[in-house]
Amino acid sequence: MKKGVFYLIPNYLGENTLFKFDNSFKNKINEINNFIFENEKKGRAFIKKICPLKKQSLIEASLLNKFTDRRNLKKLIEPCFSGIDMALISDSGCPCIADPGADLVMFCHQYNIEVKPLVGPSSILLALMASGLNGQNFEFNGYLPIKNPEKKNSIKAIEKKSINTTQIFMETPYRNNQMIKDLIINLKKDTILCVATNLSLKTEFINTETVQNWKKKNYDFNKKPSIFLIQSKS
Amino acid sequence: MKKGVFYLIPNYLGENTLFKFDNSFKNKINEINNFIFENEKKGRAFIKKICPLKKQSLIEASLLNKFTDRRNLKKLIEPCFSGIDMALISDSGCPCIADPGADLVMFCHQYNIEVKPLVGPSSILLALMASGLNGQNFEFNGYLPIKNPEKKNSIKAIEKKSINTTQIFMETPYRNNQMIKDLIINLKKDTILCVATNLSLKTEFINTETVQNWKKKNYDFNKKPSIFLIQSKS
Repeated sequence: MKKGVFYLIPNYLGENTLFKFDNSFKNKINEINNFIFENEKKGRAFIKKICPLKKQSLIEASLLNKFTDRRNLKKLIEPCFSGIDMALISDSGCPCIADPGADLVMFCHQYNIEVKPLVGPSSILLALMASGLNGQNFEFNGYLPIKNPEKKNSIKAIEKKSINTTQIFMETPYRNNQMIKDLIINLKKDTILCVATNLSLKTEFINTETVQNWKKKNYDFNKKPSIFLIQSKS
Repeated sequence: MKKGVFYLIPNYLGENTLFKFDNSFKNKINEINNFIFENEKKGRAFIKKICPLKKQSLIEASLLNKFTDRRNLKKLIEPCFSGIDMALISDSGCPCIADPGADLVMFCHQYNIEVKPLVGPSSILLALMASGLNGQNFEFNGYLPIKNPEKKNSIKAIEKKSINTTQIFMETPYRNNQMIKDLIINLKKDTILCVATNLSLKTEFINTETVQNWKKKNYDFNKKPSIFLIQSKS
């Protein structure tokens, strides 16, 4: 029996987005009824936004997040074994990138279930494009440690690597301003820091400056989803 | 005077793509007349595909590629200083990511010209999403060295890093099969290798296996644009 395809479906990066998915993307979501969400409410809201006419009662929803018992992963993709197409939808941005899903996709490969990633917004990629920093070599670090001295050590370590490889990381939005303070204190004056906020939204803001210039700047990124990028000169 | 916005516009990843840009993307390209291309013929062909009714005679084309004299970068964005919106279009995928543009974007930041990245396909990101490998920490290495012993040493070095950080790289398409051979020879048996080919196209193929399994496999990625990803277990 032909197995179902496992689609990886990106979500918008927030409200008031300037980016719109095309009709072929909408048609694909309309065709699928078996979804895996990070959060059911958010996943259903996304489908409603994309396909307002689709009956929510048709949707078979499963969950994949940090609370999911990893012993049940295979069960999540069971419909694919019966030839049914499924989709994993992220709460925001691309599934499996700084978001759950990779272990489930690995299962699909092990069982020869075809995996199809669809194109959509990724704050990491948009930030790198627009940063002006080296896009030939780059590393994404997820979140840095929250407390010192680990945080300070981590900033110093990634600054060293950023001479050759642009270093990218995130922070929990309510800690953004503290993160910038820590970066200003711990990075060299001529290291370049880009902060990219609310990407693909109407309120998008992308600023690249030396640490020295950030020091003189007024900023407030509190509670605004942001990506941080650094590149050191020496 | 209000400066023009500098848009970063992704291109399709090849012919026979399943991905389609939305109308709002098309309208944006229709509004702009000042373009910077990596290759004028390819850039104009893309605009023709996206906006078939747009008069090509309206297009002011400049070039940015490896032959561009970096002393002329500022001149390229001159129209922005006069309030005119401009766009950089890649030959394939996203500008500035494994493609030219970062130094020009850095100029825009220095002169307070707003940079706006648009959403589109990136083979690197699609490959990572669909690989099943760790998407919380990853590094893109561009191209590995062509000749041994540098190539072999580089493969060994990235395998070591890939325990914690998924390692991603590219190869010139006609050398893909040789690259897989080199990976099979130099990587550990239980290291996981993903090869993702013709992403977002009808001929897309994504395969994730241990090196041991790749050894037994028939494959031919000759001249097919591919992304390589590895993750070592120990």
